[in-house]
Amino acid sequence: MAAPIDFYFDFSSPYGYLASTRIDELAARHGREVVWRPFLLGAVFKQTGTGPLVDVPIKGDYARHDMPRAARRLGVPFVLPEPFPFLALAPSRAYWWAFDRDRAEARRLARALYEAAFAEGRSLADPETVADVAAGLGFDRDALTAALADPEVKARLKAETDTAIDRGVFGSPFVIVDGEPFWGHDRLDDVAWWLAGAKEGEARDVA
Amino acid sequence: MAAPIDFYFDFSSPYGYLASTRIDELAARHGREVVWRPFLLGAVFKQTGTGPLVDVPIKGDYARHDMPRAARRLGVPFVLPEPFPFLALAPSRAYWWAFDRDRAEARRLARALYEAAFAEGRSLADPETVADVAAGLGFDRDALTAALADPEVKARLKAETDTAIDRGVFGSPFVIVDGEPFWGHDRLDDVAWWLAGAKEGEARDVA
Repeated sequence: MAAPIDFYFDFSSPYGYLASTRIDELAARHGREVVWRPFLLGAVFKQTGTGPLVDVPIKGDYARHDMPRAARRLGVPFVLPEPFPFLALAPSRAYWWAFDRDRAEARRLARALYEAAFAEGRSLADPETVADVAAGLGFDRDALTAALADPEVKARLKAETDTAIDRGVFGSPFVIVDGEPFWGHDRLDDVAWWLAGAKEGEARDVA
Repeated sequence: MAAPIDFYFDFSSPYGYLASTRIDELAARHGREVVWRPFLLGAVFKQTGTGPLVDVPIKGDYARHDMPRAARRLGVPFVLPEPFPFLALAPSRAYWWAFDRDRAEARRLARALYEAAFAEGRSLADPETVADVAAGLGFDRDALTAALADPEVKARLKAETDTAIDRGVFGSPFVIVDGEPFWGHDRLDDVAWWLAGAKEGEARDVA
């Protein structure tokens, strides 16, 4: 089987959530697996001198309109958590802690966390919310809560974020396929095109 | 026939060029016409506090990689003019001058100008280049050159740019369909979806 696809995202990213609802199925159609790689977008913004999309004048208003519309086109629920954006430290640490024990369980946790945020509107900044979601899936609540403050888990997330920056990741979602970078949930069709062999002119038939 | 689609773009925008190769055909499939509306993106950047994409650290490098890749997927030629970005005053004024005389001829001019820039790599900042392209299509070179310095033509472009800003346009390309805004060449599939009736979940079948 060909190398897995790296799916970079921030748990506070609405477009990351939208991409998360498609990426596994899309990759599977092309015989690929996906490694979900949450990181902290805030650390990346320091590199590019940019900031959260919704805070940009005019563009931010557009984004608030575009997000639910894009969700509608995908047929998935969408609501913006309050407050937004939130700092995604707790869910990201929880994910990497779970990932190093059982990758499939970590994926299940990531999905549930994204749904809590963008289908139910719950901010994931609060470690209690993250623990609630994890406990609901059968995770050991005390072990997870302890992991959120564990220096090794903290270092794990920091290393993942540093690697993301080193690989040129500057937004969420961001997909890397065999070294080829794709930024944005609206690039998933390009990812599929790439996986299928990148035939010239293919997109002329799309719409 | 339903109201035409407004297609906003800057002549220095690579993604505007890419969108220009699809927009008319896409709209025609849904029984719509398109009004091409070049404006000056620089005036918009002042509103949003942003700047040219290629000047953003890291993101700019990605864009330089993504542009030819997106062109390949569409099956259209692509080269980045040098210098880039260029100030698109001359082609925009030439367009609006032509538009007020003959819309079809103005469209033909816009296509030829975009091709000169992004298929042939010629900067359109130089009025001589714009005049060359126009003359090649049969436009009166002297009349066009005079128009570029005409206060009325200058005011026409300024008014179009102001209207674009008033309508919330903050990037290029930007499409407005019956009041609904779509930003980016990668939103053209969403435009097609919107024109087809915005059926929920339609995009799940795309890739």
